[in-house]
Amino acid sequence: MNAQTDIKPYVIGLDLGGTNSVFGIVDSRGDIKATTAIKTQGFDKVEDYVNASVEALQVIIEQVGGIETIKAMGIGAPNGNYYNGTIEFAPNLSWGHHGVVPLAKLFSDRLGIPVALTNDANAAAIGEMIYGVARGMKNFIVITLGTGVGSGIVINGQLVYGCDGFAGELGHVIMKRENGRACGCGRNGCLEAYCSATGVARSAREFLLKSDEPSLLRDMNPDDITSLDVSIAAGKGDKLAKEVFEFTGDMLGAACADFAAFSSPEAFIFFGGLVKAGDLIMEPIKRSYDEKVLPIFRGKAKFLISGLDGASAAVLGASAIGWEI
Amino acid sequence: MNAQTDIKPYVIGLDLGGTNSVFGIVDSRGDIKATTAIKTQGFDKVEDYVNASVEALQVIIEQVGGIETIKAMGIGAPNGNYYNGTIEFAPNLSWGHHGVVPLAKLFSDRLGIPVALTNDANAAAIGEMIYGVARGMKNFIVITLGTGVGSGIVINGQLVYGCDGFAGELGHVIMKRENGRACGCGRNGCLEAYCSATGVARSAREFLLKSDEPSLLRDMNPDDITSLDVSIAAGKGDKLAKEVFEFTGDMLGAACADFAAFSSPEAFIFFGGLVKAGDLIMEPIKRSYDEKVLPIFRGKAKFLISGLDGASAAVLGASAIGWEI
Repeated sequence: MNAQTDIKPYVIGLDLGGTNSVFGIVDSRGDIKATTAIKTQGFDKVEDYVNASVEALQVIIEQVGGIETIKAMGIGAPNGNYYNGTIEFAPNLSWGHHGVVPLAKLFSDRLGIPVALTNDANAAAIGEMIYGVARGMKNFIVITLGTGVGSGIVINGQLVYGCDGFAGELGHVIMKRENGRACGCGRNGCLEAYCSATGVARSAREFLLKSDEPSLLRDMNPDDITSLDVSIAAGKGDKLAKEVFEFTGDMLGAACADFAAFSSPEAFIFFGGLVKAGDLIMEPIKRSYDEKVLPIFRGKAKFLISGLDGASAAVLGASAIGWEI
Repeated sequence: MNAQTDIKPYVIGLDLGGTNSVFGIVDSRGDIKATTAIKTQGFDKVEDYVNASVEALQVIIEQVGGIETIKAMGIGAPNGNYYNGTIEFAPNLSWGHHGVVPLAKLFSDRLGIPVALTNDANAAAIGEMIYGVARGMKNFIVITLGTGVGSGIVINGQLVYGCDGFAGELGHVIMKRENGRACGCGRNGCLEAYCSATGVARSAREFLLKSDEPSLLRDMNPDDITSLDVSIAAGKGDKLAKEVFEFTGDMLGAACADFAAFSSPEAFIFFGGLVKAGDLIMEPIKRSYDEKVLPIFRGKAKFLISGLDGASAAVLGASAIGWEI
């Protein structure tokens, strides 16, 4: 990262989500200078998506002084492969679900700048290292608690991509080997099946069924309960809702204890919607971790909440990959 | 590793075990040019241990042409901390169990060469990368199946030490969260409690108790059964002994599936006494892994047996750290 001395002071970040594609032009301090967005869907061909993107981008590129001021572009995208700059078999993208899409090359050819691409959790990890709470850290793990559970792992100051570009799928370690919940990946008992936002909502429904504890959540149609509802109820002191967070945090702490045995990180950094529950989720994670981790690691790791600004965190994360090229 | 062009063609390796300390002088091809050994125990003070070691070493150092031919020394030792060159609270060492012993510095001061130290599983991983089956690989995991289960993890061509020097304790990920076996670490359900040599012997005793299947192992006093006995019986086609290896391999495959979600290695390399069982253990590992791993990783990782010569593998591994200094 030689942004400060480089004559090109900006990078472009693209947070490519299932619904929206948000672009930002970011300086080396993590200040977003300009932003724009398009709908991700509605394009049959990836070329049409790239055309629409570049058209929107050109406006904000001019705002910051033209393409000459831009060092590179980073993309955070589902099923993103860093090594190839491709999106591979992304089930939720109309133009990307049937094969391997060379998205980094397509943008690079159009814009004339280097473009790198990875998945959103890896982008978040680089974002924390460059702009966030992991500045100066060489060994840490970012765990994203959103619709799914994702992760970005940094070891010796480098993101872990593995032999194929797909390392860091910590949402899919098995936490319950017998009678585990079905996971979207087709297997059972994954961390994600319990500790994602949808997992938390599912836990709430299960807890409501198996006890007759009074709860604010009983006023709702069970199928409508979201993790935010559980969070709000727990914030009001609802015992059952708090038990759901205890259960979730207990499992996340147990998972982190296993991750410590792998890479002994300096910090675990939590990111995403569920983190808004604050201590309701963080305290059980820390308690469970300290109780379960191998004694040699006890008390060493920090448990932090993402330092990236919520609304723009994903764009910042994506842009951060641009500095790493 | 610039051994070939260096005028100092050798490194010293020390395999520091609970009983014996074995020294070898090794060239860059992994040929052991000279070897010696002393008893590890029987010294009250670490200085006495180092004195005895240096006395033994001087003989073989002269054999290869004097200390001027030696680039560095690598030590593989229990509870070895690479960052500090220390052995920390090693329970089995008479001169090392009560604190932090700066062993690398003590040897370096006496020999006048750089000395690095790590645990034996990490040493094995570096050994595989420099002399063994992992030559040319940048992402792999060595799993040692001996008295305990150890591991050395290489990511982006570097050994993973973590924030404190103690990363890579994969024998202590939890494989059974409910009613798990007691582990030597004081917790329950660790991989090591099932898949170490002692774990295999324990599984055999459990299997004998819970079935009335005829078995060659019934001719023995249950307390005397070792993993080697199980291996020999299985090799003769003993059904119960084969089931013990199926059970052990099944769990190792499940563990490797979780490890793949972490670092997506190119290969898992197995090392240590249990590996002598060959396909009896390797086939169930591979079968279980392919069945359980996240689909995106299926069929990508190789499952290999250590390429280091059995008798001298630990010395070779230790010496390999010397090239990395």
